[in-house]
Amino acid sequence: MTSPLRIGIAGLGTVGTGVARLLAANAGLIAGRAGRKLELVGVLERDRKRNRGIDLSKPKWHATPHAFATDPNIDVVVELIGGADGVALDLVKAALVAGKPVVTANKAMLAHHGNELARLAANRGVALAFEAAVAGGIPILKSLREGLAANKVQRVYGILNGTCNYILTQMRDSRREFADVLAEAQKLGYAEADPSFDIDGVDTAHKLAILAAVAFGGAVDFKGVHVEGIRHVSAADIEFAEALGYRIKLLGIARQTPHGLEQRVHPCMVPAATPIAHVEGVFNAVVVEGDFVGRVVHEGRGAGAEPTASAVVADLIDIAHGRAGAGLNAGAKPKLAPMTRHEGAYYLRLMVVDRPGVMADITAALRDEKVSMEQMIQRGRAPDETVPVVITTHATVEAPMRRALDRIARLKTVREKPRMIRIEAL
Amino acid sequence: MTSPLRIGIAGLGTVGTGVARLLAANAGLIAGRAGRKLELVGVLERDRKRNRGIDLSKPKWHATPHAFATDPNIDVVVELIGGADGVALDLVKAALVAGKPVVTANKAMLAHHGNELARLAANRGVALAFEAAVAGGIPILKSLREGLAANKVQRVYGILNGTCNYILTQMRDSRREFADVLAEAQKLGYAEADPSFDIDGVDTAHKLAILAAVAFGGAVDFKGVHVEGIRHVSAADIEFAEALGYRIKLLGIARQTPHGLEQRVHPCMVPAATPIAHVEGVFNAVVVEGDFVGRVVHEGRGAGAEPTASAVVADLIDIAHGRAGAGLNAGAKPKLAPMTRHEGAYYLRLMVVDRPGVMADITAALRDEKVSMEQMIQRGRAPDETVPVVITTHATVEAPMRRALDRIARLKTVREKPRMIRIEAL
Repeated sequence: MTSPLRIGIAGLGTVGTGVARLLAANAGLIAGRAGRKLELVGVLERDRKRNRGIDLSKPKWHATPHAFATDPNIDVVVELIGGADGVALDLVKAALVAGKPVVTANKAMLAHHGNELARLAANRGVALAFEAAVAGGIPILKSLREGLAANKVQRVYGILNGTCNYILTQMRDSRREFADVLAEAQKLGYAEADPSFDIDGVDTAHKLAILAAVAFGGAVDFKGVHVEGIRHVSAADIEFAEALGYRIKLLGIARQTPHGLEQRVHPCMVPAATPIAHVEGVFNAVVVEGDFVGRVVHEGRGAGAEPTASAVVADLIDIAHGRAGAGLNAGAKPKLAPMTRHEGAYYLRLMVVDRPGVMADITAALRDEKVSMEQMIQRGRAPDETVPVVITTHATVEAPMRRALDRIARLKTVREKPRMIRIEAL
Repeated sequence: MTSPLRIGIAGLGTVGTGVARLLAANAGLIAGRAGRKLELVGVLERDRKRNRGIDLSKPKWHATPHAFATDPNIDVVVELIGGADGVALDLVKAALVAGKPVVTANKAMLAHHGNELARLAANRGVALAFEAAVAGGIPILKSLREGLAANKVQRVYGILNGTCNYILTQMRDSRREFADVLAEAQKLGYAEADPSFDIDGVDTAHKLAILAAVAFGGAVDFKGVHVEGIRHVSAADIEFAEALGYRIKLLGIARQTPHGLEQRVHPCMVPAATPIAHVEGVFNAVVVEGDFVGRVVHEGRGAGAEPTASAVVADLIDIAHGRAGAGLNAGAKPKLAPMTRHEGAYYLRLMVVDRPGVMADITAALRDEKVSMEQMIQRGRAPDETVPVVITTHATVEAPMRRALDRIARLKTVREKPRMIRIEAL
């Protein structure tokens, strides 16, 4: 057996502590699979006093990032500080410049600076590995890069944020409204005090940008991701979805189209019979559609100390074997398809005054934009009161769909902003 | 880019032709991911005339296995002939002895001779790769070996045979009996003329033995797999399963227990809410439970030319990178847990004469073996006629369960062989 791989962990929060615990708990097994011992020799962390439930007396405690990143006794730097910029970014750059491979779970940093970091890693000939950055414990990046490497990927999509999936699952199970379930999720620790990063789709978009880069081989283009969150999904939408044979999920989707690469994050209606419809609570899932393999679904825990540690240590084992690369192809940005050219079916929910002629105005707006209706539901009658009307369309281009919706929104009989949720053909 | 990797394919049946087609269709993409071209230079196949829909004029056509396996112009041998012994085995041995890496999809051969072949590969320092042998296009072996390498696997289980899953799905959807659905599946080409290999669980057992060896790091022990097929699953069982909140799936399960490694293939009742319950038709799925990652589900196509080719070519890309190994740890056979020590819940279906006192005899038999009942269902009354009685138990050891069942089978009021299906806690 060759000499141990000496590891430095930056950041001993939940995940960092989880990695240290995993390295200790499964040390023998990991050494067997890595072909050498993985030894924790250094940590970068100010708070030395906190009881983390494991013996951390052996590694050297660093207080300054630069000394840590360039410590000649550390072979690999594991960055688990988080944040797109600041200490995490400086540290990773310093480590790569010093010729050290880096493992990180930092999706925000990779979404914003992944291309630059990958170029740096490639120039230095060292690994930049980040399995933990997308879908936590699910080894989806390895699957895309290696297990499914023979395939042209046609579409990759997933539930990439456990908080959103938990909220949507709870809304469906308990028939409650978004705000109510969010407040409860915050109380239970499933959502942050400031939840916007999760519920507005930003976290999903970070992960999708990385996933798309790996799946399609282009540079990361986070700014090119169309992002909508789940704030506007209502209990009524979830009920109508059920009635129509759908479930509502926040998906990140990257798809090759004739107009370029689509990268989008938004609530989707997905057929109730499709595997992703059954991914519940905090679980994540990623589906790959390849030209030869067909549809492959990966499901597992997308967050938490232990699943994330599992992915980080898998990267370390790859590095021990010398089989990890620069991670991203720091090539050209992909040609992106504008969202206005997106083509798909739509669900519309309109709150209208129940009065003769209303439907004629609405359907005229759709007809004039050549939007073809598939279904219309108006449950019950309530003359002169506001009632929901739900319409689903056949596949339609987004630009005319939006124009029709704008016109519908201006109708006097339409009392709230119309809600639109895209239906994804899966 | 280094010199091309020169490939020889033995057997141009469905899968062999699929591999040749994939190598041609995605040649550029594959070369990019492999770091070098993958070139088909030789085939071993007698039937040269058949139109396979692709240009096969370039590779050299061999007629004798030995000349093929030792052709100095072939760098890697892809064995797609099939069969546990005979030409396939001789060919693979000859190739390994000649120092050539081998890729195979042959689960029967690996189940019977995997340890010997792995030793040969290890001795020669060449790769023996077989991602395609388990669950077709799903990159499950790579996930186990690499993506989830940091975990102690606690249990791995899956739907590994598409024919059985198709039959069980059809039985449920159309409420028909096994024989009827099997006949239809044979007509549609989803089941072989001689279906026993699939429906008696042998194929699943081959794959499970390989899966267990990779997941738990021991030698392949096919003979140590407890195997039951799906012939005895009836439409009534499927209906009762639904009523009890379960679905019936043929699973291959390997689990570490205090008594050793359990390896078993049998119909299972699985909770309707668990991901594997929703894997339908010809799809396969494998679930890994690791100590850190938790539950990871992989689902995809388990058979067919294109998914299998996807897995074969992924192995070739690994070989091109020099990152494939001997595949199996040719170490000690695992200590196996005897099936009589299996512990779990059970579903029993008894066809009994509807008459006072029947239940007293049955429950006494269970009580005397300390089997604790969880539920009992007898729908409707039909005095003096034969009616089904269904009993589910709490977790029980298999040996006393079997003794109780033997005693119940001997009761005069029990008119058919009692049916037992294990309930798997997932």
